[in-house]
Parts: sequence; structure tokens; C-alpha cells
Amino acid sequence: MTRSIITLTTDFGSADHLAGTMKGVILNINPDAEIADITHHVLPYDLLDGALAIGQAYKFFPPKTIHVVVVDPGVGTERRPLLVSAGTHYFVAPDNGVLSMIYEREEQLTVRHITSDHYFLQPLSTTFHGRDIFSPVAAWLSKTWQTNAFGEEITDFVRFTLPKPKPSGKGVKGVVLRADNFGNLLTNLAAEDMPQVIAGTSFKMRIGNVEISKFAQTFSEGGPNEPVLLMGSSGFFEVAVNRGSAAKVVGANRGAEVTVEFA
Amino acid sequence: MTRSIITLTTDFGSADHLAGTMKGVILNINPDAEIADITHHVLPYDLLDGALAIGQAYKFFPPKTIHVVVVDPGVGTERRPLLVSAGTHYFVAPDNGVLSMIYEREEQLTVRHITSDHYFLQPLSTTFHGRDIFSPVAAWLSKTWQTNAFGEEITDFVRFTLPKPKPSGKGVKGVVLRADNFGNLLTNLAAEDMPQVIAGTSFKMRIGNVEISKFAQTFSEGGPNEPVLLMGSSGFFEVAVNRGSAAKVVGANRGAEVTVEFA
Amino acid sequence: MTRSIITLTTDFGSADHLAGTMKGVILNINPDAEIADITHHVLPYDLLDGALAIGQAYKFFPPKTIHVVVVDPGVGTERRPLLVSAGTHYFVAPDNGVLSMIYEREEQLTVRHITSDHYFLQPLSTTFHGRDIFSPVAAWLSKTWQTNAFGEEITDFVRFTLPKPKPSGKGVKGVVLRADNFGNLLTNLAAEDMPQVIAGTSFKMRIGNVEISKFAQTFSEGGPNEPVLLMGSSGFFEVAVNRGSAAKVVGANRGAEVTVEFA
Repeated sequence: MTRSIITLTTDFGSADHLAGTMKGVILNINPDAEIADITHHVLPYDLLDGALAIGQAYKFFPPKTIHVVVVDPGVGTERRPLLVSAGTHYFVAPDNGVLSMIYEREEQLTVRHITSDHYFLQPLSTTFHGRDIFSPVAAWLSKTWQTNAFGEEITDFVRFTLPKPKPSGKGVKGVVLRADNFGNLLTNLAAEDMPQVIAGTSFKMRIGNVEISKFAQTFSEGGPNEPVLLMGSSGFFEVAVNRGSAAKVVGANRGAEVTVEFA
Repeated sequence: MTRSIITLTTDFGSADHLAGTMKGVILNINPDAEIADITHHVLPYDLLDGALAIGQAYKFFPPKTIHVVVVDPGVGTERRPLLVSAGTHYFVAPDNGVLSMIYEREEQLTVRHITSDHYFLQPLSTTFHGRDIFSPVAAWLSKTWQTNAFGEEITDFVRFTLPKPKPSGKGVKGVVLRADNFGNLLTNLAAEDMPQVIAGTSFKMRIGNVEISKFAQTFSEGGPNEPVLLMGSSGFFEVAVNRGSAAKVVGANRGAEVTVEFA
Repeated sequence: MTRSIITLTTDFGSADHLAGTMKGVILNINPDAEIADITHHVLPYDLLDGALAIGQAYKFFPPKTIHVVVVDPGVGTERRPLLVSAGTHYFVAPDNGVLSMIYEREEQLTVRHITSDHYFLQPLSTTFHGRDIFSPVAAWLSKTWQTNAFGEEITDFVRFTLPKPKPSGKGVKGVVLRADNFGNLLTNLAAEDMPQVIAGTSFKMRIGNVEISKFAQTFSEGGPNEPVLLMGSSGFFEVAVNRGSAAKVVGANRGAEVTVEFA
């Protein structure tokens, strides 16, 4: 029998005890759980950024992994805590849309409103449900696997759609979803949005203060300070600079508009 | 039989190999130990900040957890390495007061001066006792659980008292202990220092360049850029801004004075 | 039987899902593997910095530890993925010299070009081999321990020599390899390069805009803002300031020249 795996994705940063305290709560309930940090550096309060982080990582974990996702600006309010069964994975998160990419990608969804408060830490704080609700629910689930013990199924959970590309003249218009650690700019343009690029059609992409016409297979095809377009590892096109920061060279960041035209 | 759990709290940051090297030392001695990072971002050399990090997190871990706390500006000097049994937890740390919150909160205390140097890595460096003393002692303890093998009990260990609130006019005066990742300002004012606030008495708090009179239950009760007072998850009052940084809005940070007056 | 241990050293930072995704891939193949982060904050694309991180940490881990090292500016190009057996440790990394310190320190070396692509994730991306090649190879190795199943041995692997100190007048000239989290400046000067210092001979070290003549045993021997020379925990001399940042006080950082003269 293999160990239960619980992942953590939060906007708590790493300078505070918060993520560590969540680990303590989990291990106190299930000392045999294996905890894996995905990231604690989701942009503070940023549901889209959180949705992207867990949405890109979860499917690489084993079946039955429990993912705790805490980006929770409404902590302590009436927003509901959720336990979601999605395909072969479980998710514990606030009902604020931070699981939207999961809802989009998984067909078999069961979303429960966690109401069984005997699983919560007491006294229940109004400011740290990562500690008092989400971690203990994940830990208890990793021992019992009885999702229906935590609350009733609901269908009116909160979801948002990721920003979608739109047709624009002879091309398509998208947006930068985020800049990664290297300054690579992740767009919301997927392969199916620009099959011409992959097929080798010439194109002009405008982003920030530059125009890009080179589709590269690898980062190293670009010259110094030359931004190029790449198919990123998550299935979205990315703008990158070889051994440099596209964000700096291009002068763009999250939310920047990207337009692509074909000849 | 459950696994031994060892936590790490240091000011080593995450850019260096230091925390990773400590994990190697522990796993080399006890490959079955489970290591949980609390934080490696205690402010450099800052004993109060370290005391707060471990002091807020430790009690959420299971009984018998061994907490390694390395904020150690005096490394290599005559300051003593300690093994502390406190309630159901163990602590391995330098004798410089970084465990002061533990001493304050736990009644059953046994503090030992670690002198059994056959547990240390050799050659013993003068600059990295996290690797050479604290990690191996924690790892050996997690196998043997024989605290008395590590050294004699002492009573003259170093401790400091956390800054205490003082009466001030018709109210109380406190201090900001730290700003967290969101910019929330943790004060040293606990529930018992201001029961009036919790009871609903009107108050005026001066902090930084603002005056606060709103006691909120949740972060989201505040308007945009409106700093509010909250009861934080660690039992101290906090100043917060809904989806913003109180540190920025209020213009205050660690060490800032906080005064509260009641009508 | 003890668990397999896999360490991670990358330049991915902690703000992205990348390191978390690698953990998912590993646990999906070997749910019983124990994963330990060494650091994800190697300077982006910086092979020397990566070589130093893994080179200083690896030997403290148990025999049979598998170290995944991903600093990989050439990802997706013809640069080869390697599986290295070095002494009692294993390394999985791109063939770009990032393992140079391992090659320098271990005499028993077997370097294999990983070609058995049935171990890779499919479809294979051109931008994230940490996920698609290095993690799965490490995970499969941790189950089978059959290094020869992954590819043929090679001898023409890429290695660079760390910058070496040179004689200079009546002394020696070196370089700053990196500044750590505290601002301590790690030089490339080892004990054998300056035995006179350890023997107590007086010296003058020029670094940045200061001259140093004090060799200290511990950080705390220095006065406020006084830079001193120390023997660091990795066997290299370091310049440090007691409870301060030598990088700031001295005005030097990675790559800065260090000259030492003896009377």
C-alpha cells in the first residue's frame, strides 16, 4: 500500500510560518501523509494565478493525490469550503473559482460543500482556514477516502473562464497570463488557436514594444536579446529570450495584449 | 509505528545549498525521518523573528516532533547548543533565546546543553553548526529518543521576553512584531490586552500614519485601502487591508508603535 | 529496506509550478521516493552557480541518493541528458558542465548518455526536460537501480574547471564565487591555496573597496561593519561581516577579484 500524497498551492509566500503550520496540521492527523509543495508564491489574492499554478501541475501527480489550494481573499466570509473529486484527483479549496482550470479540464466532477465541522480545528479562526479547515479536511480524507462524509454535493460552485483568445483581423488576439522565473511570457494562445504557426505559416506577433516573426523549437534558437515564439510545456505559446528575460526585453508582463497576424 | 518528524526553521534563505545540506545530514543518519520545512526566511540574525516563526507553528505538529531552529549569529563561539524537551515536543537550537516563545508557553521544560560531541559531524566547522551539530543531533534523537545521552540539564539558558504591551492613558500601547507576506501587521497585543475591542467597545488605534477604529471579523470587511483591526490566527491582533498591504497603506513595519485608546 | 532519496537542484525559482510538477512526475512513478529540495534558486542559466550548489551539498546525503540537477539553457537542443554514477551517488542532469564539481571530486565516475526514451514522458516537450526526461529517469532509477538500462557510457562529456587561484606577487589572486543569503562572499581560495593564513602569517587581502587583514574563527569576532576573512564550511575562504552583509560593506559580488599578499 502506497502513501497518501497531499500537495500544497498557496499565496502564503515562504517567509512566514503559514505553510509550515499547515504541514503540522496534516502530519498531526495523518503522520504517514507525504506532503509536496507545488508553490507558495501564487500572486497574493490572485485567483487566476492560483488557477494556473494548480492547473498546470496537478495531472502529473499520481491518482488519488489530494491537492490543497489556498488562495482565499474571502477567508472567514460565507464563501464555501469545497472538496472536489475531479477525474482521479481530489481538491480542497475555497469556492472562489481558483479551481476553474480543473473544472475546465476534468469531465468527471463531484463538488461538495464541506460542512462537517467536526473535522475542523477548534477554535476556528476567521483568517486562516488553510490551517483550520483545508489542511485537516485533506488529512482526514487521506485516511478515510470517504468524500461523502464531508458534505453534500453542490452544482452552483463558482467558476470563471480563463481569458480566451479572440479573432482579430487576419489573426488572433490573446493575452499574457504570467511571466515565469526566467521572464518567459506565457500566453493564453494554445496550439489550436494558431495551427498556422505550427504548420510553418509566416506570422507577425505584436507584444509589448516588439514584433516577433520567429517560431523556435528551443530557447537556444534565439539570438541575444531576440524574443521568439515557442510552444511551451503547458500547451500554450510562450515568448522567450535565449538566456534572458522576455518580460524585460519585450516590455510586457501579465495582462499585456498579444496580437498575431498571418500574411 | 509512525515516522519521526523533524522540522526546519532557519534564516538561511532558499538561494543556497544550506537547508538542502541539512536535509542530507539528517537523511544520512535516519533515512526514514520525515523532514518538514517551516521557513528558511527568518530575517537574518533576527532572534525575535525566529522565535515568532517557531512559536506560532510548533504546536500544530504531532507529539514527538523534533524542531530544529537555526538562527545563530554566534555560531562557533561559546554559546551552547541546546536540546529542549518542552511539553510533547523537542527542540534543537543555539542557546541565544530563539526558543523564548517555547519557554514562555510550555510548562514542562527540560533544557540540556548538548556536549556529546561524538554525535557531531567531523571536522566541526565554526560557521555551520546547522549542518555539523543541530541536524545530526536531531537525526540521532529521532532514532534513539534518549535525550539524556546528549548532555546535562541546565537552568541558566538564555531567554528574552517578547515585547509586552503597556498601559497608556485610557488604553494600551504595543508594537508591530512583523509584517507577513500579504503586508498584514502582526502586533504584540493579545485578546487579554484589549478585551474591550472584542466586546465591541469603540476604540482608536494609531499606527504609522493612520487611525483605525474598525474591528473586523474577516479581511473582506474592509473597503479598498481601508486598514482594519482583526484578531489574527495566532492570537494577536493584526492590522490588515482587504486584498492589499497594510504595511504599505499604513506606512508601518516591524517595530512600529501601536497605541489604542478607548472612549 | 530504506526509501529511495531524490534531491532537486534547479534554477526554476519557487514562484512557478515547475518544481512541484517535477515532484508529481517522480511520485507518479515511485510513490515511495523521498524528495528533498536542495535549492530551486540557482541563478538562472548559470552553470557555475548550479555546479557550486550541488557540489557543496551532495556528499552529505546518504549513499545511493539520486540528485536531479536542472540548469539547462540548452533544453531541447542536441545537448545530451546524462546519468552519472559518481562514488556512491547518482546524478541526472544535462551534459553542459553543471556536474563539473562532481567530476572534480569523485574518482569513480561512470557517465551515461540517456537514450532509452521509453522512460521519458510523452509527448516530449522541447522546453521542460526537468519534467519529461530528468524526473522520470530519476524515478525509474530509484525503483530499478539498473543504470545500464538508460544508455551507453560516454567519455566526452562536457566539463569545465572552476576558476583556479593564481600566484600574484608575494601572494595569490582569486575570485568571488558567490554571495550567500547573508552577504557572505565565498571565494575560490581553499585552505591549500593560503596555508599561511591558517598558520597565522599576517596578510593583506584586497577585495572590492576594502583591505582585510583579520583572519577570524567565527563570524562574531568581527566588529560592526568590519569585514573579516574566515574558513567557510565548504572548505573555501569567505569574507564576512558580523551580523551584516559583506557584499554590501565590501562592495563586491560574484566575479569580483580577490588578491592576497603576505609580508
